[in-house]
Amino acid sequence: MIVPPPAMRPWSRPRVEIVADFGIFAVEKGLLHDAAGQPMRDVFTFGCRNWCNVVAVTPAQEIVFVWQYRFGPGELSLEVPGGVIDPGEAPEAAARRELLEESGFEAGKIELLSDLQPNPALQGNRIYSYVAWDAVPTGSTAFDELEECETALVPRSSLGALLDSGQVQHALVAVALETFLRRHGAGT
Amino acid sequence: MIVPPPAMRPWSRPRVEIVADFGIFAVEKGLLHDAAGQPMRDVFTFGCRNWCNVVAVTPAQEIVFVWQYRFGPGELSLEVPGGVIDPGEAPEAAARRELLEESGFEAGKIELLSDLQPNPALQGNRIYSYVAWDAVPTGSTAFDELEECETALVPRSSLGALLDSGQVQHALVAVALETFLRRHGAGT
Repeated sequence: MIVPPPAMRPWSRPRVEIVADFGIFAVEKGLLHDAAGQPMRDVFTFGCRNWCNVVAVTPAQEIVFVWQYRFGPGELSLEVPGGVIDPGEAPEAAARRELLEESGFEAGKIELLSDLQPNPALQGNRIYSYVAWDAVPTGSTAFDELEECETALVPRSSLGALLDSGQVQHALVAVALETFLRRHGAGT
Repeated sequence: MIVPPPAMRPWSRPRVEIVADFGIFAVEKGLLHDAAGQPMRDVFTFGCRNWCNVVAVTPAQEIVFVWQYRFGPGELSLEVPGGVIDPGEAPEAAARRELLEESGFEAGKIELLSDLQPNPALQGNRIYSYVAWDAVPTGSTAFDELEECETALVPRSSLGALLDSGQVQHALVAVALETFLRRHGAGT
């Protein structure tokens, strides 16, 4: 532990109910209590499954990216493969599956890069990021409904410049790439 | 541009309506159309204001963190100061304000670190991350309703170890810290 625990005590939201279900996410409502257990007011969050993404490195030291249309901003987004972890599915298996489905690349050795909360202010789920080494193309993809991807390979040595260029807009992809660079470097 | 634009063409969601408003976010519904303009099905996203956060460095080369209770996972979270950008407020001004309100530190020189989308799969807003140099304590904080923070200072040289420890769980904070480390280093 680098930082000692704080003196402040956590609040709580003892009972949470789903007030609206939109399929990929559900809105939850719960009465917030302060650290002394006194009720404050209702707070809304949203619930969704855990997510994964994967920084896949080819034997030629290229990183596997996919272009994908994103509903939030309504534009094409340059990302690493990733997606929703199925019920009962191990995060690592989901990362291998999403890599294959979205890009057609098969992972060799795979290892955990980070295990984070996408945004604890609004949601309680987790995102698991992996590195997949020795990723090789199989030639076949399998897109989900409402998904269509186009693969792009980026030299590992260009990752820093790519991040600085602003072409990667998805913050949850950027954090995986930044962590990859700090831990494993840009290659030679 | 590091990666050439894809051959695939974007889909579209020409009309979006708000179907439920929960205060800090609103749920939006719109009929997705494919690249040829053919209607597919309704897609839900959520709308919220833009966000900011700030990596503040003291003259003694410490980074300013705040502990804060987060509703999503229901636990205390170790983060850099940040929050919602007010209507009409410049992102840089919001970063200075949030730093002061949450930690009591006043920024000296401030510069943009990254300008990203928190999660384009679900939401259309942006998050602006800043570095604040020469941040000094003023001794006074001003918490929002439903907010209470406790400041913690972390040596800049420990940031990498802190990230690897898993104590920083908020991915949007982690991406700012990782980008800071890659651009500006851990000091000496």
